Amino acid sequence: MKALEDKILKEGTVLPGNVLKVGSFLNQQMDSDFIMDIGREIARLYEGERVTRILTVESSGIAIAVAAGIALHVPSVFAKKHKSANMPKEVYTAPVYSYTHKETYEIAVAKEYIGKGDKVLIVDDFLANGNAVRGLIGIIEKAGADLAGCAIAIEKGFQGAGDELRAQGIRVDSLAIVDSMDESGVIFRAQ
Amino acid sequence: MKALEDKILKEGTVLPGNVLKVGSFLNQQMDSDFIMDIGREIARLYEGERVTRILTVESSGIAIAVAAGIALHVPSVFAKKHKSANMPKEVYTAPVYSYTHKETYEIAVAKEYIGKGDKVLIVDDFLANGNAVRGLIGIIEKAGADLAGCAIAIEKGFQGAGDELRAQGIRVDSLAIVDSMDESGVIFRAQ
Repeated sequence: MKALEDKILKEGTVLPGNVLKVGSFLNQQMDSDFIMDIGREIARLYEGERVTRILTVESSGIAIAVAAGIALHVPSVFAKKHKSANMPKEVYTAPVYSYTHKETYEIAVAKEYIGKGDKVLIVDDFLANGNAVRGLIGIIEKAGADLAGCAIAIEKGFQGAGDELRAQGIRVDSLAIVDSMDESGVIFRAQ
Repeated sequence: MKALEDKILKEGTVLPGNVLKVGSFLNQQMDSDFIMDIGREIARLYEGERVTRILTVESSGIAIAVAAGIALHVPSVFAKKHKSANMPKEVYTAPVYSYTHKETYEIAVAKEYIGKGDKVLIVDDFLANGNAVRGLIGIIEKAGADLAGCAIAIEKGFQGAGDELRAQGIRVDSLAIVDSMDESGVIFRAQ
């Protein structure tokens, strides 16, 4: 998605520790029209796939998951990172290790919101080491649902998880793939 | 908003501890078309107000904040509940006490995403004791921005915070106000 690459080049900042900061438009401040464009692009990629549900993980994936849900007219569900008082007891869970926070947390989705017969599209803002996506795939498997694929805004291609998932036969569509980045700039993979 | 009251009556569940569970359509699983209807209704209420930014707090407010942002064509920003590694150092913060989790946490918004000249609309899924909204108002004041008002999906009217805010001259629009609720049902305030 050329518009996303242009936006990253214009507004993104590379920070130490392989962090690509895109908070101005994607995941802290959301550029509403642009988020909806991303949702429509995801819908275009999966429009023939009979997706019944979109699944993401809180918090930064929610905006584009909602936009994709609006564009595809299917419900979106987000996995919670901590069990809360309002969380139904009947949940599917998976452990996820966060390199950002250097800890393992649990993600959980209520069993009532995903199940057999569902065809689930995973949506997230970033794919880096793939841990969040693998956790979500684990929940989809536990629920007996089918995986339609993974639609990602920005894949850090140099971390390899996207290609590992593809090698396993999982459909991964990333709207921008960063092959390398440093303070001097960002280089995208041709798609 | 009659459609929201109907949806609460049809799909909502009252749980012990004054919890109104609406996870099937509003804040865990999001009914995309309905979330967009809520966004359009919020946009209709504030269309003449020259709102420049929408502000919410992670996670459950993000979906309707994004929908309202899409409908109003203005960016939405969410306050984070914990400072994270990717969070700019320059943040406005406010303490918020959570009755659900029985603890005080800090919410934070990067200074670059809110400032003088902004007219900010607070959006959230619930207004109960008002602590989250008061925290967000505190951040808007620290930023020197103006408050357009608070657009809430569901106000728990019996907890009083909405009327307290109105008595202080703050505009609060709640699409459904619950005046009382128990296992036998939910009663809405006429609006």
